[in-house]
Amino acid sequence: MSDEKLCIDYSQLESLYGPLAESIRRLVDVSIRTEADPITVAAVKDRIDTAAAELGASAQPGTFGVQLTPDGQTIAWGNAVVGLRNPVAPPLVLHHEPDGLVWSEFVLGAPYEGPPEHVHGGVSALILDHVLGATAHRAGRPAYTGTLTLRYRRRTALGRQLRAQAHVERTEGVKTFAVGHLADEEGVTVEAEGVFIHKR
Amino acid sequence: MSDEKLCIDYSQLESLYGPLAESIRRLVDVSIRTEADPITVAAVKDRIDTAAAELGASAQPGTFGVQLTPDGQTIAWGNAVVGLRNPVAPPLVLHHEPDGLVWSEFVLGAPYEGPPEHVHGGVSALILDHVLGATAHRAGRPAYTGTLTLRYRRRTALGRQLRAQAHVERTEGVKTFAVGHLADEEGVTVEAEGVFIHKR
Repeated sequence: MSDEKLCIDYSQLESLYGPLAESIRRLVDVSIRTEADPITVAAVKDRIDTAAAELGASAQPGTFGVQLTPDGQTIAWGNAVVGLRNPVAPPLVLHHEPDGLVWSEFVLGAPYEGPPEHVHGGVSALILDHVLGATAHRAGRPAYTGTLTLRYRRRTALGRQLRAQAHVERTEGVKTFAVGHLADEEGVTVEAEGVFIHKR
Repeated sequence: MSDEKLCIDYSQLESLYGPLAESIRRLVDVSIRTEADPITVAAVKDRIDTAAAELGASAQPGTFGVQLTPDGQTIAWGNAVVGLRNPVAPPLVLHHEPDGLVWSEFVLGAPYEGPPEHVHGGVSALILDHVLGATAHRAGRPAYTGTLTLRYRRRTALGRQLRAQAHVERTEGVKTFAVGHLADEEGVTVEAEGVFIHKR
């Protein structure tokens, strides 16, 4: 097999499918809050069913999975937290600092609601699992959550700038011990610690 | 104010907006996996943008929140786990047994992926937070997560029948101590325990 055959242009695919996912995220958001009348809802539902059929005609079975680029970058576009192509994902953009700190800043809207106008406690857990786990991930060598403990200090508001961050406290063999938190502009709202395990 | 004014027909709204959310869930699923060409994607994106504009014209600002029916039922259609109208929610249907056990059976697809073909560890946390918390919830008197601890025994597969369940271990004043797990057909995959707090 020649190298050419392996060389998918991911940046081209990103600019094709990324905006599609963004449009679906906007649709998801307004669909929760709309008070459209039955005739409008029926027409919109038809439009969405047509769109799904058009995309479905060439959909791969199963899931997106994880792909590796020729230079070793992980393409996890289906991921529930960071997936560029997954409308369920906010999606978070992770930053990896040279000292090992992983962080992300983002705003969560209506689809992530638990208590009225606040982030679902489980959504905070979802995000912190991913950000803590990202301190242990290496390309082609994923880390799996072993344990995760969350302490909720106070509620986290929707529609405001949030920041999640984590760092490695220590490693022991295949285990990475990570700590981190979710914060709003007034400080920490949820603390987290977890053990992430590299499969042997 | 007369009783009539408060009397929204939720079953009628459910059969209007529930199928819309189901259509969007199907769209989300195929959009992650499609290999449609640029011309098809552009046409589908236009269709989705039109649909979002049509729904957005009558969308309430903010979030769905939680509504109470005249007979005290909680309507949390925007909820990230159980929200009938929230395409991000699977959505889980919770069953409350007379002995206090809360359980739900469901299948998770491509939008909930972490490791290839497996449920994101954070999605398991999201679901268990909700199901454990539901043991403490009372209509009009929500319980907030205080702490949540998860132990991952093994990976949980996408596309298979799953069950989440929880029960109250004990209560101390405003605190409910709940335990539960996520399981597939071979047994428990993730164990959870949490403390849920009623606001005074």
